Amino acid sequence: MNTILLLNGPNLNLLGQRQPEIYGHATLNDAVTLARAACAEGFGIEAKQSNWEGQLIDWIHEARGHAAGIVINPGALTHTSIALLDALNAFDGPVIEVHVSQVHRREQFRHHSYVSLRADAVIAGLGLEGYAAAVRRICDLTG
Amino acid sequence: MNTILLLNGPNLNLLGQRQPEIYGHATLNDAVTLARAACAEGFGIEAKQSNWEGQLIDWIHEARGHAAGIVINPGALTHTSIALLDALNAFDGPVIEVHVSQVHRREQFRHHSYVSLRADAVIAGLGLEGYAAAVRRICDLTG
Amino acid sequence: MNTILLLNGPNLNLLGQRQPEIYGHATLNDAVTLARAACAEGFGIEAKQSNWEGQLIDWIHEARGHAAGIVINPGALTHTSIALLDALNAFDGPVIEVHVSQVHRREQFRHHSYVSLRADAVIAGLGLEGYAAAVRRICDLTG
Amino acid sequence: MNTILLLNGPNLNLLGQRQPEIYGHATLNDAVTLARAACAEGFGIEAKQSNWEGQLIDWIHEARGHAAGIVINPGALTHTSIALLDALNAFDGPVIEVHVSQVHRREQFRHHSYVSLRADAVIAGLGLEGYAAAVRRICDLTG
Amino acid sequence: MNTILLLNGPNLNLLGQRQPEIYGHATLNDAVTLARAACAEGFGIEAKQSNWEGQLIDWIHEARGHAAGIVINPGALTHTSIALLDALNAFDGPVIEVHVSQVHRREQFRHHSYVSLRADAVIAGLGLEGYAAAVRRICDLTG
Amino acid sequence: MNTILLLNGPNLNLLGQRQPEIYGHATLNDAVTLARAACAEGFGIEAKQSNWEGQLIDWIHEARGHAAGIVINPGALTHTSIALLDALNAFDGPVIEVHVSQVHRREQFRHHSYVSLRADAVIAGLGLEGYAAAVRRICDLTG
Amino acid sequence: MNTILLLNGPNLNLLGQRQPEIYGHATLNDAVTLARAACAEGFGIEAKQSNWEGQLIDWIHEARGHAAGIVINPGALTHTSIALLDALNAFDGPVIEVHVSQVHRREQFRHHSYVSLRADAVIAGLGLEGYAAAVRRICDLTG
Amino acid sequence: MNTILLLNGPNLNLLGQRQPEIYGHATLNDAVTLARAACAEGFGIEAKQSNWEGQLIDWIHEARGHAAGIVINPGALTHTSIALLDALNAFDGPVIEVHVSQVHRREQFRHHSYVSLRADAVIAGLGLEGYAAAVRRICDLTG
Amino acid sequence: MNTILLLNGPNLNLLGQRQPEIYGHATLNDAVTLARAACAEGFGIEAKQSNWEGQLIDWIHEARGHAAGIVINPGALTHTSIALLDALNAFDGPVIEVHVSQVHRREQFRHHSYVSLRADAVIAGLGLEGYAAAVRRICDLTG
Amino acid sequence: MNTILLLNGPNLNLLGQRQPEIYGHATLNDAVTLARAACAEGFGIEAKQSNWEGQLIDWIHEARGHAAGIVINPGALTHTSIALLDALNAFDGPVIEVHVSQVHRREQFRHHSYVSLRADAVIAGLGLEGYAAAVRRICDLTG
Amino acid sequence: MNTILLLNGPNLNLLGQRQPEIYGHATLNDAVTLARAACAEGFGIEAKQSNWEGQLIDWIHEARGHAAGIVINPGALTHTSIALLDALNAFDGPVIEVHVSQVHRREQFRHHSYVSLRADAVIAGLGLEGYAAAVRRICDLTG
Amino acid sequence: MNTILLLNGPNLNLLGQRQPEIYGHATLNDAVTLARAACAEGFGIEAKQSNWEGQLIDWIHEARGHAAGIVINPGALTHTSIALLDALNAFDGPVIEVHVSQVHRREQFRHHSYVSLRADAVIAGLGLEGYAAAVRRICDLTG
Repeated sequence: MNTILLLNGPNLNLLGQRQPEIYGHATLNDAVTLARAACAEGFGIEAKQSNWEGQLIDWIHEARGHAAGIVINPGALTHTSIALLDALNAFDGPVIEVHVSQVHRREQFRHHSYVSLRADAVIAGLGLEGYAAAVRRICDLTG
Repeated sequence: MNTILLLNGPNLNLLGQRQPEIYGHATLNDAVTLARAACAEGFGIEAKQSNWEGQLIDWIHEARGHAAGIVINPGALTHTSIALLDALNAFDGPVIEVHVSQVHRREQFRHHSYVSLRADAVIAGLGLEGYAAAVRRICDLTG
Repeated sequence: MNTILLLNGPNLNLLGQRQPEIYGHATLNDAVTLARAACAEGFGIEAKQSNWEGQLIDWIHEARGHAAGIVINPGALTHTSIALLDALNAFDGPVIEVHVSQVHRREQFRHHSYVSLRADAVIAGLGLEGYAAAVRRICDLTG
Repeated sequence: MNTILLLNGPNLNLLGQRQPEIYGHATLNDAVTLARAACAEGFGIEAKQSNWEGQLIDWIHEARGHAAGIVINPGALTHTSIALLDALNAFDGPVIEVHVSQVHRREQFRHHSYVSLRADAVIAGLGLEGYAAAVRRICDLTG
Repeated sequence: MNTILLLNGPNLNLLGQRQPEIYGHATLNDAVTLARAACAEGFGIEAKQSNWEGQLIDWIHEARGHAAGIVINPGALTHTSIALLDALNAFDGPVIEVHVSQVHRREQFRHHSYVSLRADAVIAGLGLEGYAAAVRRICDLTG
Repeated sequence: MNTILLLNGPNLNLLGQRQPEIYGHATLNDAVTLARAACAEGFGIEAKQSNWEGQLIDWIHEARGHAAGIVINPGALTHTSIALLDALNAFDGPVIEVHVSQVHRREQFRHHSYVSLRADAVIAGLGLEGYAAAVRRICDLTG
Repeated sequence: MNTILLLNGPNLNLLGQRQPEIYGHATLNDAVTLARAACAEGFGIEAKQSNWEGQLIDWIHEARGHAAGIVINPGALTHTSIALLDALNAFDGPVIEVHVSQVHRREQFRHHSYVSLRADAVIAGLGLEGYAAAVRRICDLTG
Repeated sequence: MNTILLLNGPNLNLLGQRQPEIYGHATLNDAVTLARAACAEGFGIEAKQSNWEGQLIDWIHEARGHAAGIVINPGALTHTSIALLDALNAFDGPVIEVHVSQVHRREQFRHHSYVSLRADAVIAGLGLEGYAAAVRRICDLTG
Repeated sequence: MNTILLLNGPNLNLLGQRQPEIYGHATLNDAVTLARAACAEGFGIEAKQSNWEGQLIDWIHEARGHAAGIVINPGALTHTSIALLDALNAFDGPVIEVHVSQVHRREQFRHHSYVSLRADAVIAGLGLEGYAAAVRRICDLTG
Repeated sequence: MNTILLLNGPNLNLLGQRQPEIYGHATLNDAVTLARAACAEGFGIEAKQSNWEGQLIDWIHEARGHAAGIVINPGALTHTSIALLDALNAFDGPVIEVHVSQVHRREQFRHHSYVSLRADAVIAGLGLEGYAAAVRRICDLTG
Repeated sequence: MNTILLLNGPNLNLLGQRQPEIYGHATLNDAVTLARAACAEGFGIEAKQSNWEGQLIDWIHEARGHAAGIVINPGALTHTSIALLDALNAFDGPVIEVHVSQVHRREQFRHHSYVSLRADAVIAGLGLEGYAAAVRRICDLTG
Repeated sequence: MNTILLLNGPNLNLLGQRQPEIYGHATLNDAVTLARAACAEGFGIEAKQSNWEGQLIDWIHEARGHAAGIVINPGALTHTSIALLDALNAFDGPVIEVHVSQVHRREQFRHHSYVSLRADAVIAGLGLEGYAAAVRRICDLTG
C-alpha cells in the first residue's frame, strides 16, 4: 500500500476548539477521516500532529523512501521555519501545502510561506476539504 | 439551475500551447470540461475568457444576482489589478482563485495577489484539477 | 457652450448598489444631476463611465481641444494606471480628481495615486458633493 | 447657533505673503470671509490660527461638546503630528482636512497625512474655495 | 515576405502632438515610414497602435507563428503590465523594446520595465531612429 | 522629601472622557491618587500635564538636580519627539515610561518609541496601575 | 484555588548566571518566589521553564480552561515565534508579557515582539519585579 | 545696523551642562559671545533660544523683512519639524544650519535634516566655532 | 582532555544523502572522523546532532564550564534562531560557525546569520574540510 | 574633423574571450571597426579602453571642448560609479550609453545605472551593432 | 612646521570650469590660496588632487605620522568609497570633510557620506570659504 | 609548477600597523610566508597587493590561463566593486575569499560581499591562518 503522510503543525490539535469563526467547528479527526475517504485504491493515510518543529522534521526524514507524498499544514511554522523547508527539500515525492483558512485575508505576516518555495501545490481556504483535494492530487500524481 | 461563472484572464486562451513545461499540454477547453464534470446536480458552468481587464469586470458585474459563485484564474492581472478586486468585492457569492501553476515557485512579482484579498479560497499548482476542486467547493457552499 | 468632461472609471457604474456603508445609496445618475446643477452659466456636462482603461484614455484624447476641463473619478485605476496619468498629461485644461469615499481611511494600497501627480485639485470623502465642488472649481478657473 | 471651528496651523498666518506661486495672494482673512459666506443659516464660524501644536490641541479639546464640526488646515503638522490626530479622535463631530495647494504634487514628505486617518473628507488644491466647500459639507451633515 | 509587427501602446497615437519638449514633433506615421525604410529586402512592417492593453495582447497572440519579430513601444504599460510580458513570453521570435524618450531620466516609476525581462534588446532615447535600429536588428537576426 | 515627577503629555487630560473602550473611565486625577498611594515613605509626587511639547521639556529641565526620578506617559509624543528624548538624556535619575493602553496592539505607528531609547523601564497595558508600579520601582531604586 | 501559569522560555534557566550586567544576579527561583509572594489570596503560581518552543506551546494548551491567566517571558522566542502567538490566541484569560531587561535599549532585532500582538500588558526593565507586577495585575483582573 | 538672528532650539539652553563628552563645557552664552565677535562691522546679533517649536516659528516670522540672515541650531527639531522648514522657506535671506557636535557620527535618526533642505550651508562638528563661521558667511553674503 | 563540542543542527543527519550536487556524498560520520583527526594532542571531539532547536540549546548550556570550544553548523537555524544566539552568548570559549556549502551563493534568506553575531570565525564552502579547519583553530586558541 | 570618443570600461578588453554565451565571439576591435563604418562624413572615432576608473575619468575630462560626443560602455562601473557620472556631467555634448548584452535580463544589481541619469540615449542588447547605432545618432545630433 | 594635508578627489581639478551655477567660478588654486591664508602661524598646506581612489588612499597613508590633520573634499567618492573611510580610520589626527556646494539640496544619492562616519566635522555650502574654516579648526585643535 | 595568485586589496599593506585590536600584529609578509608553507608539492605562491582597483583587475586578467587558483582578500572593495566580481568571473579556476577579521561582527556595510557571489569558499576571522586554509583547499581542488 502507498502511504501518504498527513502532517499537521503547531496548534492544529486545537482545530474546532479555538477561534471557530476562522477555523470552523470540525476537528483534526474529522480532517483525517475526510483525507482517508479521499484516498484512491491502494493508498492509505498516516496522520501525525505535533507542536514541536524538531518532531515534524524527524517525521519528514522518516518518510523518505517510504511515503508516496506529503500533505502538510505547517501552522505558524509556514512563515518562519527554513528548517522545515530544508527537510521537505530532502523528500523526493510530491508535497502539498494546505491551510484551513484563507491566510491571505489575515495579518500581513501570514502572507509569506517558506514551505511554498518547495510545495508542488498550495491550497488555502477550502476548509477541511483542502486535505481531501490534496490527497486526491497525490494519488493522481503517484498512483 | 445554479450558474457558476468560470472566468479566465489574459493569455489563458493559450493554455496548452505556450510554456508547456509550466502549464502542461491540456487546453482551456479541457479545463472547462473538467469543471462541468465536477458540478453537483443542479449546477452549470458559464465559461468565459478575455485578455481585456474591462471585459472581465463587466462580466463580474453581470454575474451579480445571477451566478451562485465565481471561479477565477485572473492570469497576470492577479498581481496588478485593484479594479478586478473591487469588482469581486461587489459580488456577494463565494469567489475562488485558481492558478494552474504553483506561482510561489516563480518570479517574486508573482507572489502577491490582489484577488486573494477577496477570495474565499486560493488553489495553486493543482493543474486543471484546481478548477474542479473550486467548482466542488462552490457547490458545497451554495447548494 | 463650454463642456466639462465628467469621467468615472471601473466599478462606479455600481454606485449606490455595492458597499453602501462606504459609498452611500445615491447612484451615478444622481452624481451627474448634481454636477449639472453645479455648472455655471455657459457650461455643460458630458458624463461617461467605463470599466475599460483603454476606453477612458480614448475619451481623454478626444477631449483635447474640445473640453474646458476634466472631472475624473478613476476608481481603482487611480492607484495603478500610469497610462491614465500620461493621457491626462496630454490634456491642457484643469483636471480635478474626485473620490466619493475618504480613501485615506481605507487599505494602504489606496493611499497612493498616480492621477494626483497631474491633478490640479483632489477631493475625497465629500460624497457626491465632491463632483459638484469640482465642477464649480473648473467653471471658476476657465469661465 | 451652531459653531464650526476653523483651525489653521503653522505658517498659515503668512498666507498671501509667502510663496505666492504656490499659495496665491489671498490672505487668511479672505479665507475666513469665504468660509463665513458658505455657512448655512444657523451656523457661524470660529476662526483661529496658531504656530504652536499645543495650542491647536487645546482648542480642539475646548471644541468638544461645543462645536458642530471642525475644518482644519494643519499646515506642516499634517505630516508629523500624531498628537493632533489623537486630539481629533477625541472630537465626535465631522472633521474636514483642507490644503490650499495640491500637496501631492509637492515633495514626497508632504504626501502622508496623519490627520487623514481621522478626517471625514480631504480637500487639496481648491485654493481658498476648499474652506468653503468644507464648511458647506459640515452644514449638510450636521444641520 | 517576413512580417515584423510594430506595436505601439497607450498615448503613442498622440506622438508629435503632446509634450514635444520630450517627444519631438514627428508623428507615429513618421515612425512607421522610418521603420519601413529600415527593412531589409524580403521584410515588411505591420504597424498597429492601441490604448487598450487587451487589444495589444490579442495582436501579440495573433503574431505567433506568423510574424518574424516584434518591435514594441509599450508606453506606460511598460511599467505596469505583467500580462503584456506573459503574452510576449508566448511569442518565439525576437522582441525589441523601444522608447522614444530616455525614460531613465524621467520619474522614478518609469525606470522599471516588465517588458525588459523578455526583450532581446532595449533602446531608449534615440527618438524615432530607435524604431529603425530595432527593425534592422530583427532583420539581421531572422533574415 | 524625595520628589518623583509624574509627567503626562498631550491629550491625557482627557483620560476617562475619550475612547473609554481603550482607556477606561478613570481620570488623570485617579492616576495621580494611585501614584501618591504607591509612594514609599519619604517620597512625594509632583504631577503635571501639558499638551505642549515645549512645556514638557521645560519641566524636565527644571527637574534636573531636584527630582529623584521621572514617571512619564508622553502620549503621542512617544513616537515623534526626539527633543523629549534629548531632554530626558539630560536628566540623571531613573526614568520610567508608562502607557495606559497596550500600544503594541494598536496602529503600526504607535509601536516605535523614542523615549524607550532612554527609559530604564517600560510598562504598557496595566491601566492606571502602571503609574503605581513605576512609582514603586523608582522608590526602590533611589530610596 | 486559581492558578496563574508562569512561563519562561529559552535561556532563562541561566538567569543570574549569564550576562549579569544585563540581567542581574537573581535567579529564576528568586523570580518564582517573588511571583508567589505577589499572589492575592486564593491564587497560586505554577512555574515552568523550557528551552523548547514545542514544550511551551503544549503547556499553554494544557492551561486552557484551567489557568486564570498567563505570565510569560518568552526569551528570544518573543521576536520569532508566530506559533507561540497562535497558542496564546487560543487561551481566553489575560496574558502578560514580561522582560527582565529593557529590550528596547538592546539590538534592533529585539524591538519587535509577536507576543505583544496578543498580550494584555507588556512590562520591560523592571527586573524580577516585573513578574510580581504582572501577577498582581492578573489577580486584579480575574479575582 | 544689520541684524543676524541667532536661533537655538530645544535643550540648547543646557549647553555646557549636559553630556559634556559630546558638547563640551562651553555654554550658550559663550556661543553668543563668539558669534558677536565674528560679526563684520555694521552687523549685530539677536540671540534667542526656546524649547518650544511654535516660539521658534514665531521668531522666524518676525525676522522677515527685518533680519539680514538666520543662523539656526534647531536641536532635535532638525530631524522632525517640517513646520520649521516651512517657516524658513518664508524667509528671504541666507540661512545657515549649525550643529555643535558631528551629528553624522551619532544615532541613525540624527542623520536626516529637514532644515538642510532649505539651508544655504550646513556646519557640523566645529564646536562653538561653527556659529562664528556661519556669522562670517552671512556677513560676506549680505554685507 | 579538552573537549570540543561539535554540534550539527536540523537536516544535517542527511548529509551525503540529500542534494549531493550541493553537499557532496560524504556523511556526517565522515565529518566527525575528519574533525577527530584534526584535533591537536590533548583534545577530543564530542559530536551531536539534532533537528530540535531546544535540544541544541540544552547541549550548549551543558557545555558551559566543560567544553573548550564549540564548532557549530546550525543548518537552517542559522538564519532564524535568536534563541541559539543567546545560548552561545552564554558560553565563554571560542565558537566557530561552519557551513558545508557556500551559503552566500544560495537563496537570499540564507545570507543572514544570527550565529555570526557571536561566532569568532565563520567558514563556508570548504566542504567537510571546514570542520577540520575549525577544530584546528580552536586547538590553537585554547591549547 | 569631428571626433567621437568611444570609451569602454573594465573587462571589455576581453570581449569575445570571456562568457561568449553572453557577449558573443566578436572582439573590441570588431566593435571599433563597426563604429568607424557608421560615422557620417566629417566624423572620426577615437577609441579607448581601460580597466581603471581614474583613467576613464581623465579621458572624459580631456574630451571637453574637443570631442563632439561620447559613446560609452562603462562595464560594471555603470552601476557603481558616481564619479563617472560627475565626469560626464562636466561634458557638454551628447552622451550615449551602450551595453552589448541586455543587462535587464541579468542580475538585479545590473538594472540600475548611474550613467543613465546623464545619457541622452541608452542601448542594450543590440550586440556590437549598438555602438554603430550610437555613433549614427551622435552624427545626426551634432553634424 | 605642521603640515595640513588638503586633499581633493575626482573631478575637483575642474572646479571653476564645470557647472558654475553650482560651484561658482573660482578654481582649485583659489581654494588652496584661501586655505594657505587661513593657516595659523607654524602651519602649512600640502595640497593634492587626484581622480584615482588608490592615489588618494596612498596619500592618506603617507600622511600618517607626518601631517597634523586632513581637510578632504572627496568628490563623488564621498558616497561610495569605504576604502577611503578605512584609510582615514588609519590616520590619527583630525579630519574635516568639506563640500563646496550644499550637497543636501542636490540628488538623493549625494545625501549619504561614508566619510562623515569618520570626520570630526563636516562643512557644506560655504563655497571655498569651507576650506578656510576647516583649516582654522585643525590649527585650533592641533596647534 | 602550479601558481596560486595571492591578492590583497586596499589598505592591507598596513596589516600589523593599523587597528591591531582587530587585525593583530602580524604583517602581510607573515601572511605570505604562511601561505607558502601551506602549499602542496608542485605549487607556488605569487603574492601581490595594491590599493588600486584597476591594478587588481589587471592582475586577475593576467592570471587567466596561467594561475591554478586565486586567494583574494579584497579589503573594502569586497563590498563595493562589481568590477572585481566581473574580473573574477572571467577567471576559470577556483577562487577563495579570505578576511583576516570576522567581518560579520563589524559594521553593517561590511556584511555584503560582491566577491562572495563568485567565490568557491569564504573564510573570515581565522586570522592569517585563513590564507593557509585557502591555499590548502586550492591545492586539493587542482592538484
